[in-house]
Amino acid sequence: MKKSQLATGRALSPTVLALGSLALFCLATIVNAQTPPAGTLQVPAKTLTTPTDVSPQLAKIIGAPLRSNWDIHPKTGEEWKPVADAGAEALMKNVPGMMERLKVKVEKTTIDGVRAFIVTPETIAPENTNRQLIHMHGGCYVLNPREASLPEALFMAGFGHIKVVSVEYRMPPEAYFPAALDDGITVYKALMKTTPAKNMAFFGTSAGGALVLEMGLKAKELGLPMPGAIASGTPMSDVTKVGDTFQTNAMVDNVLVSPDGFCDAGTIVYAAGHDLKDPLLSPVYGDMHGFPPTILTSGTRDLLLSNTVRVHRKLRQAGVEAALQVYEGMAHAHYIRDDTASESKEVFEEIATFFDKHLGK
Amino acid sequence: MKKSQLATGRALSPTVLALGSLALFCLATIVNAQTPPAGTLQVPAKTLTTPTDVSPQLAKIIGAPLRSNWDIHPKTGEEWKPVADAGAEALMKNVPGMMERLKVKVEKTTIDGVRAFIVTPETIAPENTNRQLIHMHGGCYVLNPREASLPEALFMAGFGHIKVVSVEYRMPPEAYFPAALDDGITVYKALMKTTPAKNMAFFGTSAGGALVLEMGLKAKELGLPMPGAIASGTPMSDVTKVGDTFQTNAMVDNVLVSPDGFCDAGTIVYAAGHDLKDPLLSPVYGDMHGFPPTILTSGTRDLLLSNTVRVHRKLRQAGVEAALQVYEGMAHAHYIRDDTASESKEVFEEIATFFDKHLGK
Repeated sequence: MKKSQLATGRALSPTVLALGSLALFCLATIVNAQTPPAGTLQVPAKTLTTPTDVSPQLAKIIGAPLRSNWDIHPKTGEEWKPVADAGAEALMKNVPGMMERLKVKVEKTTIDGVRAFIVTPETIAPENTNRQLIHMHGGCYVLNPREASLPEALFMAGFGHIKVVSVEYRMPPEAYFPAALDDGITVYKALMKTTPAKNMAFFGTSAGGALVLEMGLKAKELGLPMPGAIASGTPMSDVTKVGDTFQTNAMVDNVLVSPDGFCDAGTIVYAAGHDLKDPLLSPVYGDMHGFPPTILTSGTRDLLLSNTVRVHRKLRQAGVEAALQVYEGMAHAHYIRDDTASESKEVFEEIATFFDKHLGK
Repeated sequence: MKKSQLATGRALSPTVLALGSLALFCLATIVNAQTPPAGTLQVPAKTLTTPTDVSPQLAKIIGAPLRSNWDIHPKTGEEWKPVADAGAEALMKNVPGMMERLKVKVEKTTIDGVRAFIVTPETIAPENTNRQLIHMHGGCYVLNPREASLPEALFMAGFGHIKVVSVEYRMPPEAYFPAALDDGITVYKALMKTTPAKNMAFFGTSAGGALVLEMGLKAKELGLPMPGAIASGTPMSDVTKVGDTFQTNAMVDNVLVSPDGFCDAGTIVYAAGHDLKDPLLSPVYGDMHGFPPTILTSGTRDLLLSNTVRVHRKLRQAGVEAALQVYEGMAHAHYIRDDTASESKEVFEEIATFFDKHLGK
């Protein structure tokens, strides 16, 4: 994926952009085809239709055009803030309806100085009375502030009938690496005062999927007890651009779109010069021996499918019980879009079943 | 993927074919881009490099060009026979070396009239003394006759330290649907006379991955006891062309290449007019309630990734314990190519561990 080509059309109409980019790509590919380097594969342009074996709600999500502004690259925390605020405003509009349908209530709080939401379902399942979950939201370490962080926490609490503490961790420009991780650990330590670690699990998607793995690594480093389980959804487990689906699912995943898109740019700002290969930013490089049972979720169109399955393999190689769920046709984090999609319910019920199997009571 | 375009270059050199196909694809895509139908996604041409996070052996397999003659479409069993014989001759050359490295011996036999190979490792693990596995080989129901069927059986016996009976089931032009399935069931019934069903597992890849699921469905239909476990690798679980990675991994998977390629053509010949949506040909449509624990294997470049994960979901929805393994960068059945690749060993050790957990002793 050549950034220079894709960036040319930013100010143009989508059709002109599509035509221009395609022509350039095709031209580049045809020229390359004359002397294909060993080990490379030329894949022709293609038109994808929406898969037929998914719910109508998911079909709509899969069939949506590429995320608008997927190729923006704000360079500072201050540049990210208006982007994050605009996105949050749009997302937050969905929250009240989700709360109503999922029958959950939300309370804003502070835990040892860290902002958080307590998400409580109308009915807590009997086996979950003495359990609670820590949620780390996604958004490339720079997006989804405030209530925009909530959808996944609502889905988990509502479908899983379990209490969730969603950490509204600090993000640029308020704070930089390792602020998000530190906030997660602070909340974990605080909750351990009333709930045994083995009765808790960490869960999150995208940057949140990475953060829950980073929290596992950090807990080991600090000598803290491990939680009873971890659920990591389509984790940004490798921000060094290693991962084959960065290529194969580029321009196929309509959310992240490309490894040279907005999400990578956000992570670079959060990292603030820190080595991107540090396992606390790219947890696939961490030592996962001693991790609790972990469930991973991805989809066949996910740009981070490779970085989900690579974590799965690393966990298995470290002797950890690890389950992998890959959903037909889903791109990055499609399962936290629409609580009425049967696949969303299925994802969170799988996670809830996994938690129930492994958490203390 | 338009067959007519891809077929135009059959007699031309690979480079000319690549250029011609690309030009046609790009032209078609650019024209389409002017009026993209709702729900479709235009994906530009791309050049894939070999992933870096795999073993050198697997990198070589992933970096190989598209399978030669991937777009042949023999129309009868008689037309397939010379194709199968030529392929088998090439494959069989690898078998003696594999046997030596994996420390297994092979004995040719007949079980209730069905041709089979008994594959015995030099060392049978103590827990496997009273267990045996039934292997159904792959090859689109028309390929890999005789010893060409053996590699996967050798890998399983050698890495898993367990006895394997590999069914050399009848294929066109000798016999048509449901001959392969019938031969598998005949062997299963025969082995049940000396080994309890719960001490046995079925395993196979591709058509073999479908056949082991079809055998599970057929066993249910016949009121036979279920085996203790099933391992289905990148199964041809849906031969009606449903499955999103038929699109997204078309021309990315260097083995199957396209749903309009040789493999589909082979299945149509085997089916001999039978409804392709019959669960005994497309097992994803079968009722999997009551299935034994099942482990599924695929890769991120696999054309049948969707049809692996769809089976995984169906099993989970039917309350079956089912594990999914997806390997970085692998296309269809890459894990049964080179017994010296660390990933091949990992695949079969995962399966062996799964079998050990679930089989009777």
